[in-house]
Amino acid sequence: MTLTADTPTGTSYDLGSARALSCRECGHEAPLAAEFACSECFGPLEIAYDFPTVTRASIEAGPKSIWRYQDLLPVPKNVREHPNTEPGLTRLIEADRLAAELGLRKLWIKDDTGNPTHSFKDRVVAVALAAARELGFSVLCCPSTGNLANAVAAAAARAGWDSVVLIPSNLEQAKITTTAVYGGTLLAVDGNYDDVNRLATELAAEHEDWAFVNVNVRPYYAEGSKTLGYEVAEQLGWRLPDQIVIPVASGSQLTKVDKGFGEFVKLGLVDDKPYRVFGAQAAGCSPVATAFEAGHDVIQPVKPDTIARSLAIGNPADGPYVLDSVRRTGGAVGHVTDDEVRDGIRLLARTEGVFAETAGGVTVATAKKLIDEGRIDRDAETVLLITGDGLKTLDAVSGQVGPTATVPSTSKAVREALENR
Amino acid sequence: MTLTADTPTGTSYDLGSARALSCRECGHEAPLAAEFACSECFGPLEIAYDFPTVTRASIEAGPKSIWRYQDLLPVPKNVREHPNTEPGLTRLIEADRLAAELGLRKLWIKDDTGNPTHSFKDRVVAVALAAARELGFSVLCCPSTGNLANAVAAAAARAGWDSVVLIPSNLEQAKITTTAVYGGTLLAVDGNYDDVNRLATELAAEHEDWAFVNVNVRPYYAEGSKTLGYEVAEQLGWRLPDQIVIPVASGSQLTKVDKGFGEFVKLGLVDDKPYRVFGAQAAGCSPVATAFEAGHDVIQPVKPDTIARSLAIGNPADGPYVLDSVRRTGGAVGHVTDDEVRDGIRLLARTEGVFAETAGGVTVATAKKLIDEGRIDRDAETVLLITGDGLKTLDAVSGQVGPTATVPSTSKAVREALENR
Repeated sequence: MTLTADTPTGTSYDLGSARALSCRECGHEAPLAAEFACSECFGPLEIAYDFPTVTRASIEAGPKSIWRYQDLLPVPKNVREHPNTEPGLTRLIEADRLAAELGLRKLWIKDDTGNPTHSFKDRVVAVALAAARELGFSVLCCPSTGNLANAVAAAAARAGWDSVVLIPSNLEQAKITTTAVYGGTLLAVDGNYDDVNRLATELAAEHEDWAFVNVNVRPYYAEGSKTLGYEVAEQLGWRLPDQIVIPVASGSQLTKVDKGFGEFVKLGLVDDKPYRVFGAQAAGCSPVATAFEAGHDVIQPVKPDTIARSLAIGNPADGPYVLDSVRRTGGAVGHVTDDEVRDGIRLLARTEGVFAETAGGVTVATAKKLIDEGRIDRDAETVLLITGDGLKTLDAVSGQVGPTATVPSTSKAVREALENR
Repeated sequence: MTLTADTPTGTSYDLGSARALSCRECGHEAPLAAEFACSECFGPLEIAYDFPTVTRASIEAGPKSIWRYQDLLPVPKNVREHPNTEPGLTRLIEADRLAAELGLRKLWIKDDTGNPTHSFKDRVVAVALAAARELGFSVLCCPSTGNLANAVAAAAARAGWDSVVLIPSNLEQAKITTTAVYGGTLLAVDGNYDDVNRLATELAAEHEDWAFVNVNVRPYYAEGSKTLGYEVAEQLGWRLPDQIVIPVASGSQLTKVDKGFGEFVKLGLVDDKPYRVFGAQAAGCSPVATAFEAGHDVIQPVKPDTIARSLAIGNPADGPYVLDSVRRTGGAVGHVTDDEVRDGIRLLARTEGVFAETAGGVTVATAKKLIDEGRIDRDAETVLLITGDGLKTLDAVSGQVGPTATVPSTSKAVREALENR
């Protein structure tokens, strides 16, 4: 550990260029620790940094994972000496065929299904694990119904840590298997997701060695999403896109991508330019879209009812900051029905060969709607974030797609079936 | 197209440094075309090249996909100008925890689940698509029961090509969904996989614009597997491993990884050194392992009966060449029971956070057995190829893993559950 007692907010932790925790509401600073709420105003804490000099060349010479940006993340200098998943540097692909269908001049897909457990959650969990180790924790924990559970159980397994993952006991068998296979402690909790969340907060307070990634180490965890923004900018050839569409659950990802773009500008890694940030929600859980439309600053919580379960957060903690980002940049927040979500999944799959989970369907369908409404500029270069994998939400489309035909095994039967397509 | 009529086997196709088709058995050369069997002896055709000068630096400056090796593949110079999946450069991770469990000094996992449709099939299909376009085809086709169907349908979708995928009509719904979602033509054929395969060969002969990736463009397709070997060598820091364990279905992948290592030596990209190649099969489909044990050169076909369906090829076309590679390098071919396959999947998941399909379980379990038998050297650096994703074969482990406990939503209940683990 590096002692940095000569800084105002001195700490004994080596968390790279992270300097302090800073309240997003009142700006109060506190030493780096496993805290997530401001002691002055209960506002959310974020990481404050003293960034070192970082160049395009130094990043390009780094590992082919999020650790190429380690100087910009709250992780120890020796982060790569401990086993962790190595997420990131997923594909950014030109999506000309989808662009043509949507009527866009130029479109890119950031395909985050290539991560170790096939969602962007590997990014945030990898950062949380690295920070948690330095902060003295030894058990990696979360409440979750899906992607986060997979990512936490996998990362803990790789690190040789115990994990405690809390899920609602009525979760589908497939989602239980994809977490249980990693061999950590998986607790099925009688109750809904809200009950599970409350229990997580209680357990975090009671167990000093348990790091709940999205509770007591949340400020570190959340920073992992910046890497989506960094990678988009780097992979575009060190420049920002004109427009980006991002799914909104808690809202953290959208605000962190925006933050990542801003940091790249400040660090001189990309030129400053206007860009617009768009949020995407499912109609069955669209509190941020509703507030955006109404011109409100406050988010009215809702009871989620949508097939896009990975976005089903009825009271999104970062909702107000999403509104800030979107309004500041001239974007918008849209929402789409579950049928539109299914159509979005299928549209992306048949045009670009990318099979997204329901959240990806929300992003594609919302982009389509915002284009049709004239809110997304057809002539401006656009990026869609696809943050999770269709293999995890098969039920969303399994009733909709199937064989073109069932035929006897003769070439004549095949010819006839093709003629009748 | 580039006219190269001044070469002995002149051709009008631009397939990069590919020079001709060459018979693996008799050495007869034929011009590059959509052929797969030697006109002289019916032996399998392979690609012969005139490789250009390739350096570590030129490769490292290339794209972060298999196209960084495009000069060593039978694809047009403009391969990146046409939409295709961009597979490859998947993670090679140090697997210290699995090494400790297996009693190995140093172990690496090549995790090919990071590919676009989460198996190594994206590599071979991407090469097949690129070559097929140049050869004049316009429909991408395959018979398949799983990973190959996903990869072909996705690649065709991205390219804007029609696809025709043939599957046995009794295939599980989940596997139908993961191919049908890409929107190509999916034909469920009444019959078993052998019937489907026969039908594919018939259809390939009848439709001049249909490229069956693993039939009429097989010589091109198969070359895609070399990139697994190239990447292992590059990611180890431009050197060959001491030992590598590779699952065996048709046997093509193992022989191509071996070929890739040899090419890197010839090109001066890595130092020449002894390495040993090991094959892994499921006991329910182990014709190559059986021939290896018996010291035979001929493979006796079997009727597959194993949960490792992606390896269930009872009459493996490249089996004799697998025996050649393994015997030449001092390796072995082992086989494991379905229970051992399940244990292998779980062992890899709980030690390294990598959730593999059944073929990965075969590889891990076979490695364990070969180590225990003293055939794999515990002190020699070893690489395991994990070529497909556990999300596609959930049934293999879903009956074996589950929640640690089901509890009421109180911290007291959680404490009690943990004490009783």
